[in-house]
Amino acid sequence: MTQVLGVAEAVLYVTDLARAARFYTEVLGLPLTAAFDEARFLQTGPNSTLILFNVEGIEKRVSVIPSHGARGRGHVALAVPAEEMDAWRGRLLAHGVAIEHEQEWPQGTHSIYFRDPDDNSLELIDAGHYPAVWARLQK
Amino acid sequence: MTQVLGVAEAVLYVTDLARAARFYTEVLGLPLTAAFDEARFLQTGPNSTLILFNVEGIEKRVSVIPSHGARGRGHVALAVPAEEMDAWRGRLLAHGVAIEHEQEWPQGTHSIYFRDPDDNSLELIDAGHYPAVWARLQK
Repeated sequence: MTQVLGVAEAVLYVTDLARAARFYTEVLGLPLTAAFDEARFLQTGPNSTLILFNVEGIEKRVSVIPSHGARGRGHVALAVPAEEMDAWRGRLLAHGVAIEHEQEWPQGTHSIYFRDPDDNSLELIDAGHYPAVWARLQK
Repeated sequence: MTQVLGVAEAVLYVTDLARAARFYTEVLGLPLTAAFDEARFLQTGPNSTLILFNVEGIEKRVSVIPSHGARGRGHVALAVPAEEMDAWRGRLLAHGVAIEHEQEWPQGTHSIYFRDPDDNSLELIDAGHYPAVWARLQK
């Protein structure tokens, strides 16, 4: 028996860890659970973590832990309660975060897109319809 | 009230979508829930999805959906049941996947690291101790 239960860690690469961590803790309210020289761990719900890596630091890291690191603009979608989508929009705007796009998916699922300080693409999506939304969208 | 419930979508960039999708469906057994020109959606447990993007395709995509795309080696950790770690190791080896590293974390949590065909770093980690493991590791 081999099951996958979920995404334990999603990753985004940034150039300024302090600035990025401030954005994720203050604007998104994610608890900071650990801080290392090249990484900040942010709790995203009960079972998952978003790790911010300093891209230069992680590329140069000498460690037994296998290396990685990517340059460009990453993407992560965070599940939020459908009934809190308006509150989330208000929170982003109150922090001066520009909403780049809002998407109404065919099944009534809604997404709000915005950027972190490193231009990574972030999405808040209704948790209720996920991930079945994509299987249905495909049909 | 603004809550984040979890990572709905984690992303990895690849150069050959068909090859990558084969790896994730066959080696990891993840259900393919949707396939688009530049993306494959793989279900990772009940509440989350791993999206593989063709990096060239997504960089060139013209869409209302905000753009992204990164080059290098990404990282995603998938939560698996602690009691299935041996079965997972066996499954990887049976598919000829090299195990790059195994890490015993201080609290007894265990991780297996390996690579996908695009050299992205994948990790299977005990679900039980997550994400509190990092808060404890920090102390």
